[in-house]
Amino acid sequence: MTEPLFERVALIGIGLIGSSLARAIKTQGIAREVVAADRNADYSGIGLEGDLGLDHPLSPDVAATVAGADLVVLCTPVGSFGTLAAEIAPHLKPGAIVSDVGSVKELVLREVAPRLPPGVHLVPAHPIAGTEHSGPKAGFATLFKGRWCILTPPEGTDPAAVAKVRALWEGVGSMVEVMEAAHHDRVLAITSHLPHLIAYTIVDTAVGLENSTQSEVIKFSASGFRDFTRIAASDPVMWRDIFLNNREAVLDILQRFTEDLTRLQRAIRRGEGDTLQELFTRTRRIRREVVDANQA
Amino acid sequence: MTEPLFERVALIGIGLIGSSLARAIKTQGIAREVVAADRNADYSGIGLEGDLGLDHPLSPDVAATVAGADLVVLCTPVGSFGTLAAEIAPHLKPGAIVSDVGSVKELVLREVAPRLPPGVHLVPAHPIAGTEHSGPKAGFATLFKGRWCILTPPEGTDPAAVAKVRALWEGVGSMVEVMEAAHHDRVLAITSHLPHLIAYTIVDTAVGLENSTQSEVIKFSASGFRDFTRIAASDPVMWRDIFLNNREAVLDILQRFTEDLTRLQRAIRRGEGDTLQELFTRTRRIRREVVDANQA
Repeated sequence: MTEPLFERVALIGIGLIGSSLARAIKTQGIAREVVAADRNADYSGIGLEGDLGLDHPLSPDVAATVAGADLVVLCTPVGSFGTLAAEIAPHLKPGAIVSDVGSVKELVLREVAPRLPPGVHLVPAHPIAGTEHSGPKAGFATLFKGRWCILTPPEGTDPAAVAKVRALWEGVGSMVEVMEAAHHDRVLAITSHLPHLIAYTIVDTAVGLENSTQSEVIKFSASGFRDFTRIAASDPVMWRDIFLNNREAVLDILQRFTEDLTRLQRAIRRGEGDTLQELFTRTRRIRREVVDANQA
Repeated sequence: MTEPLFERVALIGIGLIGSSLARAIKTQGIAREVVAADRNADYSGIGLEGDLGLDHPLSPDVAATVAGADLVVLCTPVGSFGTLAAEIAPHLKPGAIVSDVGSVKELVLREVAPRLPPGVHLVPAHPIAGTEHSGPKAGFATLFKGRWCILTPPEGTDPAAVAKVRALWEGVGSMVEVMEAAHHDRVLAITSHLPHLIAYTIVDTAVGLENSTQSEVIKFSASGFRDFTRIAASDPVMWRDIFLNNREAVLDILQRFTEDLTRLQRAIRRGEGDTLQELFTRTRRIRREVVDANQA
């Protein structure tokens, strides 16, 4: 067996992504030791050590957990990153790498980077993987397999640190792409943030209907609605933080979406069948490209 | 073996739903004979007889196909129903049942009912089943299994005719519900028509982005977008006709959706985290109900 990539990996937050990462790192032998901290009292006493293969019991003590780690990964909702960075900074080992799994990346440069001591490397990451389930019990070791992981290291980051984080994600089965944080946030606004916003909204619109109709909406949800309910079941705090922290890109893409929707609404009201058919034909192409890219 | 429910079933239109119904009826022995007409030249010569188990070669002649049938099912886009009804009316056997599989049901009462001769029974139906694929090759015999089928017979319809159509759909594995056409159109506007409209729009918004971003949208589509591309790959003509023919209900629910979306947009712009979190928590409940109703 080859030497593990890391001596000690510390995960802060042990929800769906954190717990899956713990399992994947242990399964693949990527670190000699995996430790984790989480302050959610619900997660204590559910046999995390056995389930996740952690090398120490799950701790509520963030500072003690990061001490001595050569890689620290923030796996909490992005709104907590600034506070967490300030808290762990004094306890980080010199030369340690700090990373995260957040869905918004400019925020990491803004909130985490300035709080880290010199000699610590920041390599933000975003694994494009997940399910509609939350919490440590929902995690599994193969969650990242065949999925993309985007790294957004700030300019001037030590290439060796970037290479190690890349090797980690490739080691758990992901394909890795490097891009600028601001670009990441614009791409994800359309591929992920807007779809979630729309799904939450349409399900909320259904919730607002009279009770009798609502039960029929559930019953006949197979006709399209159910796909939106799955997306709208994602973790509320995680998504609150994403929208609050990618505000500009989300509002910009939402504005474009609203314009496109208004155009379609107008075509329906005026009975413009050609406009509708032409648009519905154009959108089919994108599906084929998604299928061809093996992302379906 | 018991007697089949129908002597001769004639299907007009042999796309995803029509071809699946042909296969299901033959597989279940529901009719002694299944015949079909379709004017799409693409569908000739692709071995339909063998694939679908039709008892005569697929015909382009609608009038000849319905002659002698005790059940005629319209399986074409709903925009064609009025013309088709006028065309088949003189050739229908006295006592025959006319049904359809359209996603809009008030239109059937408006466009089909007045054109049928006395003594012919109209029992409109809407199987809540489908995939994003179109055409006869996409059909399969078990498409309707475990799915709902809604019947919307006009007031005063012969109960025996309704019972036979119910038995047909139960025979192919569906659960049957009877409701008024106008109510059906309101329920489907939220469960199906609005979700499709939104999915088409969001994919079109992505199509409108610069090319470089567009290729990244495809690449990273697993983060939510891909589910929308699947819905937005549905048949363009079918969906054009649905929106043109359920205009009032769709525009009404779209108005509610837009109001809800504007509220969320405002909360994001103003950084109102509590509003977001509260809404995202509320929508989770609906997912649980969909799962509990075995529709997930």
